[in-house]
Amino acid sequence: MSDAMPDFSKGACYLNGTYVPMSEAKIPVGDWGFVHSDVTYDVVHVKDGAFFRLEDHLDRFERSLKGFRLTPPVTRDQMREILGRCVALSGLKDAFVAMVSTRGVPRIYGSRKPMDCDNTFIAYAAPWVDVIPPAVQERGAHLLVASVPRISPKSLNPTYKNYCWRDFVQGLWEAHDKGFDTAVLIDQDGYLTEGSGFNVFIVKGKQVLTPDRGALEGVTRRSVLDLCPELGLEGKITPITLQDLMEADEVFTSTTAGGVMPCARVNDHIMNNDRPGPISVKLKELYWKKHAEGWHMTPVNYADPDHPFVKAA
Amino acid sequence: MSDAMPDFSKGACYLNGTYVPMSEAKIPVGDWGFVHSDVTYDVVHVKDGAFFRLEDHLDRFERSLKGFRLTPPVTRDQMREILGRCVALSGLKDAFVAMVSTRGVPRIYGSRKPMDCDNTFIAYAAPWVDVIPPAVQERGAHLLVASVPRISPKSLNPTYKNYCWRDFVQGLWEAHDKGFDTAVLIDQDGYLTEGSGFNVFIVKGKQVLTPDRGALEGVTRRSVLDLCPELGLEGKITPITLQDLMEADEVFTSTTAGGVMPCARVNDHIMNNDRPGPISVKLKELYWKKHAEGWHMTPVNYADPDHPFVKAA
Repeated sequence: MSDAMPDFSKGACYLNGTYVPMSEAKIPVGDWGFVHSDVTYDVVHVKDGAFFRLEDHLDRFERSLKGFRLTPPVTRDQMREILGRCVALSGLKDAFVAMVSTRGVPRIYGSRKPMDCDNTFIAYAAPWVDVIPPAVQERGAHLLVASVPRISPKSLNPTYKNYCWRDFVQGLWEAHDKGFDTAVLIDQDGYLTEGSGFNVFIVKGKQVLTPDRGALEGVTRRSVLDLCPELGLEGKITPITLQDLMEADEVFTSTTAGGVMPCARVNDHIMNNDRPGPISVKLKELYWKKHAEGWHMTPVNYADPDHPFVKAA
Repeated sequence: MSDAMPDFSKGACYLNGTYVPMSEAKIPVGDWGFVHSDVTYDVVHVKDGAFFRLEDHLDRFERSLKGFRLTPPVTRDQMREILGRCVALSGLKDAFVAMVSTRGVPRIYGSRKPMDCDNTFIAYAAPWVDVIPPAVQERGAHLLVASVPRISPKSLNPTYKNYCWRDFVQGLWEAHDKGFDTAVLIDQDGYLTEGSGFNVFIVKGKQVLTPDRGALEGVTRRSVLDLCPELGLEGKITPITLQDLMEADEVFTSTTAGGVMPCARVNDHIMNNDRPGPISVKLKELYWKKHAEGWHMTPVNYADPDHPFVKAA
């Protein structure tokens, strides 16, 4: 290895107390985060050099940590600083910034007790990419309601952000097999939940509705609900049946990794002449306009190698 | 790094085509095996220098791979040879030998399509350790029926071996909080399923029963069922209710990582004067006696650095 500065342009990762390029960011095969999916995470985005709703993401991460009884060896202030440093090191102006805590490897070889593990904190800034590619967002995504039901909230609380995506992965295979862009899942009672890393909204008249169950409390979801009144819309968290979904005027998805992403089809239900719906497009435009205006944005300090990289809330 | 032979005594791992000590066995933080728990595995044990039911484990691993649509870049013959080489390198006469296949990292940065990933094959031999410590097995394990229900087979097929253990981990916390050794889970309909990495049996008269749902088709489970007739017992796969469990004469668990492990308590139900039951103990003794007799054993070739390390079936 040379003494040159590592190449962080493809992402910078904080791991075991040091910063490494993404290509060196690895976890042990025995970490319970891998072998038991005993891990939580959150992802916040940076747009034009500023974090969006950073404190809301940190709030949710702390709720997830508590929910799964994970205690990473860093304070909230340290997390914020590490996230900022990852972005500054990468130099990326548009990025996804992940924070992850795994249960870790047991201190006692072979122990099956979660309390015998030292929990980890991992963070990284990686180049921006949309969950649904921009060209697909333009024409309107095609969603498949997958046949696999969402894992029940009784077995796994979906408001704690987790990597237990086996149901989603099965849904993704089915969607791609059938020529759809991505999948959404219904629960065992027939209610709409979410997709793999995104919330779902339906539009019915002036109502903009998103499921009250089986789904993450998305930060972008909350932003959409916050913005509805500005457009004369009523945003609401409510039960949504499969039938409601199939009879919607419009459907869109929301996620940190892409914002508001309009859909044109759900199964064989074609909406708005097979194009993104007008309300979805207006919400998408307003969401990004608000970013440009600095709404909930926290600038990253790229220039100064001394602290702090991010201003505390 | 020195040119000396690596220290494989704490385990040897095959990863990306080379053999490394366990301490260097790591996967990328972006591997879908980690971030989506999109991975399968199997674990076979080596006792006194020989694999137990190696081909049965390879059969099941192939079924799990097919179930999750994973295609690692090795043939079955190569897998067998790699597993044998891991054991030979470690020098371990008693070991657990894992085979793992992850979805991998997408070839296209940020792709959300499982078909854009090159699936991996990882294997390792690690020192023997019992899921339930020997001293606990001797006094009889104390099982808690956890309050979290097992993830439904509709959302995740439990006969494909997986790392989606969030329900189990929650159960383990509850068990340890309440002073129990480990947890077993009931499904949402009230039927017994399995524990974290082990099957469960109940004994009722001469009947030795294990659940027909929500559980892995364990190789040790099958061995127990195979051995029942030798002891004049009737082994059976059948629905088992919570009430059946709480009224059992005896309870034991079975797993590759420990064999037949007797229990003395389930919740407040104390069996056999708080000791392992006689039938459980007989099955345990017969299980290990059969090992010593060479039943289903495939010796590892430790001595010869040239192939093969294991004889094909």
